[in-house]
Amino acid sequence: MRRLAVSVFTLACTLPAIAAEGMWQPGQLPQIEQSLADAGLKVDPKRLTDLTAYPLNAVVGLGFCTASFVSPTGLAVTNHHCAYRGIQYNSSAERNLLDEGFLAKTLGEELPVEPTQRIYVTTQISDVSEQVGGGLAELADGNARYDQVDARSKALVAECEQGGGVRCDVYVIHGGLQFNLVRQMEIRDVRLVYAPAQAIGKFGGDVDNWIWPRHTGDFAFLRAYVGPDGKPADHSSANVPYRPKSYLKVNKDGVQPGDYVMVAGYPGRTNRYRLAGEVADAIEWGYPTYIEYYSAQLALIAEQTAGRPEAAIKYAANVASLNNGLKNFQGNLDGFAKLDVVAEKRRLETAMEAWLAANPEAVPGYREQRDALDQLLAEQRAQRERDLIWSQLWRTGLFSTARDLYRVALEREKPDPQREYGYQQRDEVRIQGRLAQLDRRFDAQVDRALVADLLRRYLALGQAQRIAELDQWLQRDADGGADLDARLGALYAGTQLGDAATRETWFKTKAGAFRGADDSALQMAVALMPAVLRLEQEGERIKGQEYHLRPAFMSALIAYRESLQQPVYPDANNSLRISYGQVEGYSPRDAVNYSAQTRLHGLVEKHTGSDPFDATRAQLDAIAEQRFGSYVDPELGAVPVNFLASLDITGGNSGSPALNARAELVGLAFDGNYESMSSGWLFNPRLTRAILVDVRYMLWIMDAVDGAHRLLKEMRVKPEFAKP
Amino acid sequence: MRRLAVSVFTLACTLPAIAAEGMWQPGQLPQIEQSLADAGLKVDPKRLTDLTAYPLNAVVGLGFCTASFVSPTGLAVTNHHCAYRGIQYNSSAERNLLDEGFLAKTLGEELPVEPTQRIYVTTQISDVSEQVGGGLAELADGNARYDQVDARSKALVAECEQGGGVRCDVYVIHGGLQFNLVRQMEIRDVRLVYAPAQAIGKFGGDVDNWIWPRHTGDFAFLRAYVGPDGKPADHSSANVPYRPKSYLKVNKDGVQPGDYVMVAGYPGRTNRYRLAGEVADAIEWGYPTYIEYYSAQLALIAEQTAGRPEAAIKYAANVASLNNGLKNFQGNLDGFAKLDVVAEKRRLETAMEAWLAANPEAVPGYREQRDALDQLLAEQRAQRERDLIWSQLWRTGLFSTARDLYRVALEREKPDPQREYGYQQRDEVRIQGRLAQLDRRFDAQVDRALVADLLRRYLALGQAQRIAELDQWLQRDADGGADLDARLGALYAGTQLGDAATRETWFKTKAGAFRGADDSALQMAVALMPAVLRLEQEGERIKGQEYHLRPAFMSALIAYRESLQQPVYPDANNSLRISYGQVEGYSPRDAVNYSAQTRLHGLVEKHTGSDPFDATRAQLDAIAEQRFGSYVDPELGAVPVNFLASLDITGGNSGSPALNARAELVGLAFDGNYESMSSGWLFNPRLTRAILVDVRYMLWIMDAVDGAHRLLKEMRVKPEFAKP
Repeated sequence: MRRLAVSVFTLACTLPAIAAEGMWQPGQLPQIEQSLADAGLKVDPKRLTDLTAYPLNAVVGLGFCTASFVSPTGLAVTNHHCAYRGIQYNSSAERNLLDEGFLAKTLGEELPVEPTQRIYVTTQISDVSEQVGGGLAELADGNARYDQVDARSKALVAECEQGGGVRCDVYVIHGGLQFNLVRQMEIRDVRLVYAPAQAIGKFGGDVDNWIWPRHTGDFAFLRAYVGPDGKPADHSSANVPYRPKSYLKVNKDGVQPGDYVMVAGYPGRTNRYRLAGEVADAIEWGYPTYIEYYSAQLALIAEQTAGRPEAAIKYAANVASLNNGLKNFQGNLDGFAKLDVVAEKRRLETAMEAWLAANPEAVPGYREQRDALDQLLAEQRAQRERDLIWSQLWRTGLFSTARDLYRVALEREKPDPQREYGYQQRDEVRIQGRLAQLDRRFDAQVDRALVADLLRRYLALGQAQRIAELDQWLQRDADGGADLDARLGALYAGTQLGDAATRETWFKTKAGAFRGADDSALQMAVALMPAVLRLEQEGERIKGQEYHLRPAFMSALIAYRESLQQPVYPDANNSLRISYGQVEGYSPRDAVNYSAQTRLHGLVEKHTGSDPFDATRAQLDAIAEQRFGSYVDPELGAVPVNFLASLDITGGNSGSPALNARAELVGLAFDGNYESMSSGWLFNPRLTRAILVDVRYMLWIMDAVDGAHRLLKEMRVKPEFAKP
Repeated sequence: MRRLAVSVFTLACTLPAIAAEGMWQPGQLPQIEQSLADAGLKVDPKRLTDLTAYPLNAVVGLGFCTASFVSPTGLAVTNHHCAYRGIQYNSSAERNLLDEGFLAKTLGEELPVEPTQRIYVTTQISDVSEQVGGGLAELADGNARYDQVDARSKALVAECEQGGGVRCDVYVIHGGLQFNLVRQMEIRDVRLVYAPAQAIGKFGGDVDNWIWPRHTGDFAFLRAYVGPDGKPADHSSANVPYRPKSYLKVNKDGVQPGDYVMVAGYPGRTNRYRLAGEVADAIEWGYPTYIEYYSAQLALIAEQTAGRPEAAIKYAANVASLNNGLKNFQGNLDGFAKLDVVAEKRRLETAMEAWLAANPEAVPGYREQRDALDQLLAEQRAQRERDLIWSQLWRTGLFSTARDLYRVALEREKPDPQREYGYQQRDEVRIQGRLAQLDRRFDAQVDRALVADLLRRYLALGQAQRIAELDQWLQRDADGGADLDARLGALYAGTQLGDAATRETWFKTKAGAFRGADDSALQMAVALMPAVLRLEQEGERIKGQEYHLRPAFMSALIAYRESLQQPVYPDANNSLRISYGQVEGYSPRDAVNYSAQTRLHGLVEKHTGSDPFDATRAQLDAIAEQRFGSYVDPELGAVPVNFLASLDITGGNSGSPALNARAELVGLAFDGNYESMSSGWLFNPRLTRAILVDVRYMLWIMDAVDGAHRLLKEMRVKPEFAKP
């Protein structure tokens, strides 16, 4: 996810429905059949609409990434950074698999990854728009609308999941205009098969994150295991490799500049259909504010961990994530600075409304709905500082732990389907895991400084954004001040939640017991819970209203674009999509031209001998000895490493297979270029590129460097080099 | 100078005599006639050998830069950064010509630049090798050799300068193998005619220094004035514009990628013929040590000027220069890291010595001379820390001021020809100016901190590198320690040299009076002067030995290269040279390709509205209104701004005219690319590029933005736009 959140800006032209832009639902492909053919697709587009046939039935989700089956016995390839947690989970001080890499010599050596990891095989997508969204307009208010969508969705999911072994979800499309029920086989026994050393798999590290030219071997292999009956099962030594109906054919000739290429995967989230005003808010308030908050948090963490390396280590992941966020936010702002995205959106809205004025029957009631939506957005805007502080506060360690413990207890008092999303039975394992691992990312001194910073910001808010329960808990005085030091001193001194066993005990405790708890953090959670629930309700009201109001805008947009023969793909929402384009470089700025492919010698050029540019000796030797075999691209005169393609992808597409015109595997998507960051809001075909691992680099590493011959054979690729 | 110090590395091939490499003496061009013709030169190469004919008689020196006449009435074009001091000299708080730019509407409005500025027109170059270097071998030692070269050179210069109006200098070639006497007409009345705003002339500032892509309008115009008799004269309102014999013809069609281009100018210094061991010293000791010293000085200046803006301003130029030095040193090291320059030099030496072994008659006595040279270099190496500290110390404000005052007085006791180089009559104006302006770059607190840092380093040196006089002045104790605080406290408290009038008085005082001076700094200068003179003598001895010993190596190299039909150009030495190559981009690293030209839209892309990327409104308006006229390059579809060419240039070439195949003006050299920095040691044709202003950008600015129509007409270019 972190490497992929691809995005854009455009060159003073209206939103084009051209190749490269579009994360298409498989079912939409017949609408763009001609464009696909024009772009060079050599198989029948209808083959790409069938979830149960090649190639889509080989493309699977990991929850936060994409993978694909590449052998008849459940071998799945994805990005190294997608398998990262599984590699880390199996590492120890004695045997650091991240550094060393890992290659199972036999099936028996394959290592179970962390127990929450799943492989999801999408087997069915049904339109449930009417069942979920029917009659929303008649309901009284936002909360009623939200509750209907929630209750009907949960009912559909529960029904769908009967019998077990599957995960079902209702996906919102076009802001509530449509709802899809997606059914996925849920494989619960996932094992680590092979990962190159991170000096290969993460070459360039955070320095090269979002950067082209790139030389990262961001690939790894997992395997799906099922029970002897072929059905999903918990991990067991009796389990056997899953036999997928299809697996991707590897084409070791790869692709070259100008070639057709497509990607199938599970992109997470885009904002392509936001109103101009929403984009303006993001540019003027959202990104700059987040940058300010994150920068302040980074400074605090640095200050509070100075001279305390053990505390610094606990916050290393947090720091990396904050820095990654900053790079992303800044990248978005840089993108926006280059082009007037707001003006572009306004132009589109104006053109659309002009068309609507001439075709009022297309979307009856558009104006009223649109005005009400603007009103709703204004309401949100009025509380945005409060909402930001509140959400940040509940992400800090002690606050979130206390809240989770009490909330789980509260939710357990309801029947499962009525429990709040995220606190249902099926979520408990995840919550329990998070609670158990708190020690690894929590230091009371740092946590307190972060909380103090947020509460200081809260205290500066005006009357309209006050939260009564929080004021009371803070013992806010008449002047609006509070003795933060005293309050936080008492909070951190009076809690035992820093102790894992205490947390585990409370996780099993009923809600009633919390109310008399002799723990300052739990007392805080009890005191603030009414506000948590109330603000959640407020959020649900707004969400319910959006389900009701956004569809008018989307209907109008779709109708307008239909009039121009331009089909509309939905925003990314974690469901299976297909993007297509071509292998293609770009010019990031005047007089600078990026080629579409990088070469092994470029990796040697970058090699400094120290992390993150520390190529392995085995790899450098193979290069020095010119053991390249048939992995050389004849045009390029070198083994290609990574390539660029004009593909519309975003976070969640990590690990997505790149397929050639014949739907054969030629690479793996793993990142977007820097200029692509703002494409979440507006796609610019001139500058947005996906960054992919060339299949030839992957195969060359497997063959000439790591000797993963067992896997090559399984993938029907003949090894060319003796095992190292 | 600062922008140009171009240099190189090569790709594991022997030093090639190919187009692009070579700063050729005009007299050498017949030797490379065929290469010039092959490269595309369309005029007879012999025309380029005549200093008194077109185009060379239009190419003039500014002392630290190059300029060229472009009109029959002495209009000379050079870089904005070469005219910078003249623009600054004419600026005031009310009228900042750097910010506003300057355009004289009439001859009468042209402004005299600072009085020390000269324009030098080279009129004769004579070989005086025998007169200067004859019989050196017979002399007793290095000092005798140095003294002979010094005395004979001074005599030749004095004779040459008789009659006045000319400046003569003896230039050392090939380390002493040859000596040239260069005679230059010295024009003393130089006026500022036109300079664009520095938002154009210095667009990109230090951020873009050494960087491609570039968008800098680094040009300005001066005019040479002479007395009514046509002879050089001091500034006077009676003076008239100088009428050069030739002036460069402007070709407003410019050049395009692949076109032949050449540059004539005064490159300052290169080290192309250093021994492998000398290069290794520079890499392993020289650059890293300078980086450490400069970084320490920058840190001290920052620390000592914190909260004192007036002190910070005084050191702004020093800080810029230190930073520029650091960028240069680091650029050199980056270049060296890419290629094994030392191995390359060793390979060359080995090949040459193998050839010599077969042709011993080529350079009799080579081995003995070479061994003696190695021995001499070892002697220098043994004292290098001392020499570096000593030279740095005498560059600080108080030390250099006290030394200069006393030294001038001492030298005045000798007849002028016997005075030390740099302290002759003709140097006094420069020294006096430096003394007068000390206040603008001196702050006692900062100066003291810099001196303390150097003296601390000195105190850490071993016995072999001690200087007795300095030890004594420091009151160094038996343990080698000294109370620096006390010594420096007394030094800075007991001097009046911070006062300009006091300095002026001492400047006129005889040497005897210094010895009883009641001024701590002058006392220090008197105490240390014996060491200054002794170390100077030591330096002269080494220099004298080099004159004697380096020629053997150079003779051998030249003979060896002659056997391969490869002529050898001398290292740059501030004399007139010609380089040729073609308009050509390059690839700085894998998958990144730089085009050879930048465009106006790239300038708009870089524009941020704040320095150094703050394009002027007039310029942005002209671009927005597409007032481009015939300055558009039809292939490029835009007005070109800067271009790259494979030309061998270095510091001193700044302002050099770039000529096309017909020797017409098509641009101005003003910088080298980052990769070129280490080319001072070894030229790499694949990566070394000169950066030039395209003549079309200059003319477009003059025509469409600044309305410099008077000058365009003078240059025989027809204006296309109404004056703004």
